[in-house]
Amino acid sequence: MRETVNVNLPGRGYDVVIGPDLLAEAGAYLSPMLARKKVAVISDANVAALHLETLRAGLAATGIEMAAMTLPPGEATKSWEQLNICCDWLLDQKVERRDLVIAFGGGVVGDLVGFAAAILRRGVRFVQIPTSLLAQVDSSVGGKTGINAAQGKNLIGAFHQPSLVLADTAVLGTLTPRDFLAGYGEVVKYGLLGDATFFDWLERQGPALAAGDGAARVEAVRRSVQMKADIVMRDETEQGDRALLNLGHTFCHSLEAATGYSDRLLHGEGVAIGCALAFELSARLGLCSQEDPSRVRAHLKAMGMKTDLSDIAGDLPDAEGLLGLMGQDKKVVDGQLRFILARGIGTAFVTGDVPRDAVLGVLRDGLAAR
Amino acid sequence: MRETVNVNLPGRGYDVVIGPDLLAEAGAYLSPMLARKKVAVISDANVAALHLETLRAGLAATGIEMAAMTLPPGEATKSWEQLNICCDWLLDQKVERRDLVIAFGGGVVGDLVGFAAAILRRGVRFVQIPTSLLAQVDSSVGGKTGINAAQGKNLIGAFHQPSLVLADTAVLGTLTPRDFLAGYGEVVKYGLLGDATFFDWLERQGPALAAGDGAARVEAVRRSVQMKADIVMRDETEQGDRALLNLGHTFCHSLEAATGYSDRLLHGEGVAIGCALAFELSARLGLCSQEDPSRVRAHLKAMGMKTDLSDIAGDLPDAEGLLGLMGQDKKVVDGQLRFILARGIGTAFVTGDVPRDAVLGVLRDGLAAR
Repeated sequence: MRETVNVNLPGRGYDVVIGPDLLAEAGAYLSPMLARKKVAVISDANVAALHLETLRAGLAATGIEMAAMTLPPGEATKSWEQLNICCDWLLDQKVERRDLVIAFGGGVVGDLVGFAAAILRRGVRFVQIPTSLLAQVDSSVGGKTGINAAQGKNLIGAFHQPSLVLADTAVLGTLTPRDFLAGYGEVVKYGLLGDATFFDWLERQGPALAAGDGAARVEAVRRSVQMKADIVMRDETEQGDRALLNLGHTFCHSLEAATGYSDRLLHGEGVAIGCALAFELSARLGLCSQEDPSRVRAHLKAMGMKTDLSDIAGDLPDAEGLLGLMGQDKKVVDGQLRFILARGIGTAFVTGDVPRDAVLGVLRDGLAAR
Repeated sequence: MRETVNVNLPGRGYDVVIGPDLLAEAGAYLSPMLARKKVAVISDANVAALHLETLRAGLAATGIEMAAMTLPPGEATKSWEQLNICCDWLLDQKVERRDLVIAFGGGVVGDLVGFAAAILRRGVRFVQIPTSLLAQVDSSVGGKTGINAAQGKNLIGAFHQPSLVLADTAVLGTLTPRDFLAGYGEVVKYGLLGDATFFDWLERQGPALAAGDGAARVEAVRRSVQMKADIVMRDETEQGDRALLNLGHTFCHSLEAATGYSDRLLHGEGVAIGCALAFELSARLGLCSQEDPSRVRAHLKAMGMKTDLSDIAGDLPDAEGLLGLMGQDKKVVDGQLRFILARGIGTAFVTGDVPRDAVLGVLRDGLAAR
């Protein structure tokens, strides 16, 4: 069971290979790409403890030597400090422009290590081996890399496409249910933004998928990656359509900032809540039917996921405060907030034309229900 | 007296405008590029003290507001710490993707601020207003940006082309003779690597140029920039020909590392010595005549420039030590040193085929003459 999605960008196209037990075959995939049989792998402590030896064996099977370092797990690792540490380590390993750096972990590791590869010697190639569902369906594909700044998430970074993505779906079996479901938030996002049929399929298959159905997992990752690849091929650097992938993210980034990028709210959880809020906002603006936000929330709830502001533990700023936290988002253009709204499930669009009061209204009502 | 060199790169072409008193006209050049009439200028304390108010007035002439910050002068500013400070300041100024960042200073400011612009929100546009001769003829053109690492110079960075370069040659009048001559080292490099006629011209015009002849300065900058532009258009990301621009730089980087990137040796001084050493090495390998290195050294000496290892004050490592310091250079490919050598003045070429003993011999003899 192997699926391949090609991201066909001129001069920097690459394959995303999806299937179980790919770690064991990593050497076979990487060997043809290497000028010398040595790679530098950066991971986090959790992923390394579970999977690093499997990867080492998979690489050794074709004679590839691996140097490895591990980072502290968690969003706080996407920092200037850890970026500096990664780059220093890669330089100490004497990684050159023809070598490969491997980002082995979830979205944090992928974003950080991809960025380190982007700026090391002004760009070395890297391979994403994403180990979380979120990273497999979203962050490992499309070349967005970066770190967080005090002023907001992902504000420092680069577009740097990987040379290969190996999405080992068997690895998803080691995720906690919470982490798996957080990643599922991004999967649902794809259905909501551009493929109603996929959302229908998720409504039916979601429970089996969460319970561990391997074939359903491969199919969910494949369809998500194919949608992302299609959008990235149309608009690599987010001049237009690529912003659709940010459905739910303007709300999400504000909520993540409000909760200090902590365990109180995982990124994928914020995306799920953000999607529900984006559909609520769309309905209030008369863009989609009242039933659409209800259906979105019903599926998220059926999956046991966070859906509303009331599902976030602890204090939150008021509506004005949350709106203010949206201001440093990269999606600001000429001081105006851009939102991804929807005319229905599967038909999202980008707009800069959102009344501030409507956004505040959605946030106020969400906060009042806490 | 205005000269314009166009760097014609697909989708990211730009003009390099060369002439006296351009600061006063900066507003006229920038206005058509701005979505809103506000720019963020980063400079160093020396340049700011001399020229910032002139630039402010030039921008205000067309109603452009300027926010400015200054950095400590010197190579040590090309650091992770200052990069972080620049990015934080730009985010605090709420610089967006459609805004312009202005790098106003010498090579250090241009490299650092260009890199900050490259990674801020994954890339904002920037304008180079180079104030040193070195920056005007070399570092402001071609899109190489970056900072230094503990392991070597410029090891962290990005290719990010400016949207415009304004090279105000009147500003060169405020340089110290030492700084001017250091920049002149890069000017001579262009003649040596690819244009014997230009080197002839420099042998004749060099003294007038150093003494302040405005027309000669414009012409020297124009010819240097045109050569750099031609090479960058052929090979933007240094897969091949662009390496020619590194004539003298493999030696130079080693010497800069050995002297701690300090005032003991300015970059352009290292380039001049490096060019002399590269010609010496070429002659010893039978690639060019014995007269060529003598002629190179004669012109540098006539200009009052550093020419030999004996012109560097203080201790230096031995030949093996200097060779070792070349190893972390980005121009390493598969562990092998690449050198730019010459078959004569104006005919440099890239080679990976340099006997280690020949390099050591040149270094040993240079050190013995100290």
